[in-house]
Amino acid sequence: MTFEQLWTDLSAIGRDPLSGGYRRGGWTDTERAATAWFVDQCASRGLTLESDGIGNLVAWWDPGEGGASSGSSSLSPSLAPSAGAAGGERKGVVTGSHLDSVLDGGAFDGPLGVVSALSAVDQLRAEGFQPSVPIGVGAFVEEEGSRFGMPCLGSRVAAGVLAPEKALALQDRTGVSLAAALEAAGTDPAGVGPSPLLDKMGTFVELHVEQGRALTAPVGVASSIWPHGRFRFTFSGEANHAGTTLMEDRHDPMLTYAMTALAANKQARLAGARATFGRLSVEPNGTNAVPSEVTAWLDARAASTEILESLLEAITRQATERADRDGTTVSVTPESVSPVVDFPAGLRDRLSGVLDGAPILPTGAGHDAGVFSDAGIPTAMLFVRNPTGISHSPAEHAEMDDCLAGVDALAAVLKDLAK
Amino acid sequence: MTFEQLWTDLSAIGRDPLSGGYRRGGWTDTERAATAWFVDQCASRGLTLESDGIGNLVAWWDPGEGGASSGSSSLSPSLAPSAGAAGGERKGVVTGSHLDSVLDGGAFDGPLGVVSALSAVDQLRAEGFQPSVPIGVGAFVEEEGSRFGMPCLGSRVAAGVLAPEKALALQDRTGVSLAAALEAAGTDPAGVGPSPLLDKMGTFVELHVEQGRALTAPVGVASSIWPHGRFRFTFSGEANHAGTTLMEDRHDPMLTYAMTALAANKQARLAGARATFGRLSVEPNGTNAVPSEVTAWLDARAASTEILESLLEAITRQATERADRDGTTVSVTPESVSPVVDFPAGLRDRLSGVLDGAPILPTGAGHDAGVFSDAGIPTAMLFVRNPTGISHSPAEHAEMDDCLAGVDALAAVLKDLAK
Repeated sequence: MTFEQLWTDLSAIGRDPLSGGYRRGGWTDTERAATAWFVDQCASRGLTLESDGIGNLVAWWDPGEGGASSGSSSLSPSLAPSAGAAGGERKGVVTGSHLDSVLDGGAFDGPLGVVSALSAVDQLRAEGFQPSVPIGVGAFVEEEGSRFGMPCLGSRVAAGVLAPEKALALQDRTGVSLAAALEAAGTDPAGVGPSPLLDKMGTFVELHVEQGRALTAPVGVASSIWPHGRFRFTFSGEANHAGTTLMEDRHDPMLTYAMTALAANKQARLAGARATFGRLSVEPNGTNAVPSEVTAWLDARAASTEILESLLEAITRQATERADRDGTTVSVTPESVSPVVDFPAGLRDRLSGVLDGAPILPTGAGHDAGVFSDAGIPTAMLFVRNPTGISHSPAEHAEMDDCLAGVDALAAVLKDLAK
Repeated sequence: MTFEQLWTDLSAIGRDPLSGGYRRGGWTDTERAATAWFVDQCASRGLTLESDGIGNLVAWWDPGEGGASSGSSSLSPSLAPSAGAAGGERKGVVTGSHLDSVLDGGAFDGPLGVVSALSAVDQLRAEGFQPSVPIGVGAFVEEEGSRFGMPCLGSRVAAGVLAPEKALALQDRTGVSLAAALEAAGTDPAGVGPSPLLDKMGTFVELHVEQGRALTAPVGVASSIWPHGRFRFTFSGEANHAGTTLMEDRHDPMLTYAMTALAANKQARLAGARATFGRLSVEPNGTNAVPSEVTAWLDARAASTEILESLLEAITRQATERADRDGTTVSVTPESVSPVVDFPAGLRDRLSGVLDGAPILPTGAGHDAGVFSDAGIPTAMLFVRNPTGISHSPAEHAEMDDCLAGVDALAAVLKDLAK
């Protein structure tokens, strides 16, 4: 099956007919359908599929071990516990990405890395390449955090940087906990914890669509992930009647929020950084009531931790000054703060070399690759050009020629790492 | 039963133990419980309760007609169709208000007028007063519009200014239509339409808590209701990745909205008017996504239609200018616009005279009294002092002494009008 066929099949699953986007939150029906498609694809290739407690998947191609070899045509994958399955004690090269999406996200963010991984394996097999170590194709759960609010949920739990009890207690917007969502999906929450899958990752390479307009070649190599914070701003005032309360008698937290949103934009521009208020909750959210409370989530990213901290400080200072004028209060709670990730320079330069000097560039987006790199696994990323820079949107796009160049690049890298 | 007892009983119904506020949207469980309490109170007084098709209620005291007289101790009210029931062809004096609330509203807005009406009738009966025309105690449904988005829903339908088919198609935030809500409450939607109850209203007097700090005496009389508009602002941009999209590549409708919210506040101050953005909806509302769309509802009120129009024009102009800078678009849709209501000066002055020169003042809040006045029914309003000016909030308050002064004033007014 060609890349184009795989891509057409997967991108049809769960696409919203109205918006053209996806709402593949973790363990939702559409995300489960995409995962089922992945499991089928692994089965049809005779790969040995392993799952960990939270549902991260790695499907192994390990011609050196016999058994689940390239010739198998079994249609039902063997869902073996990861200890003692294919790969044994030998560490392999894992590539892959995620199948979940942000709310109304695009087709490429995540799935491109999974489909490219399957295609690269197909290409290496067609060439008759014999890897000296197992090659794994991975799909990691809830990378976007769009359902439970925690980005890279699956990889953080797998790497042991997010405690199982904290993860299981996370709730989606309707109050469903991760524990309940897992149970509803037929997964025992008791198995959630550090993942044996990571013990077998000798190297991890994630291919991903670039998400800005920084890459002008078809394929590039990541240098680093910017530090990234999510901060909850709670603006509190006093509910009141919208028709009768004099403007000067109000304590309207909406005004404090509005000034803060504009300040965040301005400060990010000044700092060459990124600051976004994309999520809001208003109480009581009635047309004829001055709100009592506005909760707003700031997503902030910058080239260094110092810049990120001073950005947050500047925004918080302007919010507080305006709150004083409005007779409101503001409190700021960090929900997640990820320091900079510098991918290992040796591996990065090796990949760039294999790819005839592909450009090296940083990214403002978080990825499972960052979590695995922080966990000590030698990790690299490949980026495929994004012509418009649009991402996390139904309009997200990459040209087919660039996607095919990405598959070729990934195949070349796997060949080099598993030779 | 004293006013204090009645007040204590009613205000206990459906109070949220956490916020201390009420969420009595039309036909919700809490609003129905308050209505059931009202029906019981009417029954225990032997008043003849009439309902119209949408569920507005008027309970008649008509000693001149025999039958449902003051001595009756029947516990089940007679829910008669309004034609041919107590009152016959004779027009009466109706007083009352509403039992529904805004989301997390206060105890007084609406219920104070209903409880004061019952208390005033009790007081007149205890005095042995014999009205020459029937006196009705009314409770009108969904005055706040907090469930179906249409303020004065019950009175507008009753007065024939809102067509039944338009009313029945209104939907709440969960997509339930008014028709479905009525059916769920056991009411046949086919009966919704202009109300025979209004044919019997010779005069309408609504007592209401004042909702600003304009009234410094315990009780005042309304002169007018400011013109009032609800306008839906739709800010459209382009969803994008919050981490990777350069600030200068964005088309972020949140920024356009934020500037518009600040502009609305400033323009309202300049015009001596009111402008509030209290309700928002964000798409896709994800922490790590630049929004594609922000919908915000503007509540605007001013002393005259001219001021209201120029206020809306100024806000729209600033929104459009900012949209040009942000690369977004803005569209403005009026959802409801109510012109000024000038209560009849003769009736107003008569009430002020009966109350020893009670102060006369306008209000920024809409009321069923405004709808009835526009429908040609001689209408007046009494206001009870609000010491803090807070309304549409759990903190809404009136002093007990002022409430008792309100009951005395209402009794004096009814005595004068029904003498």
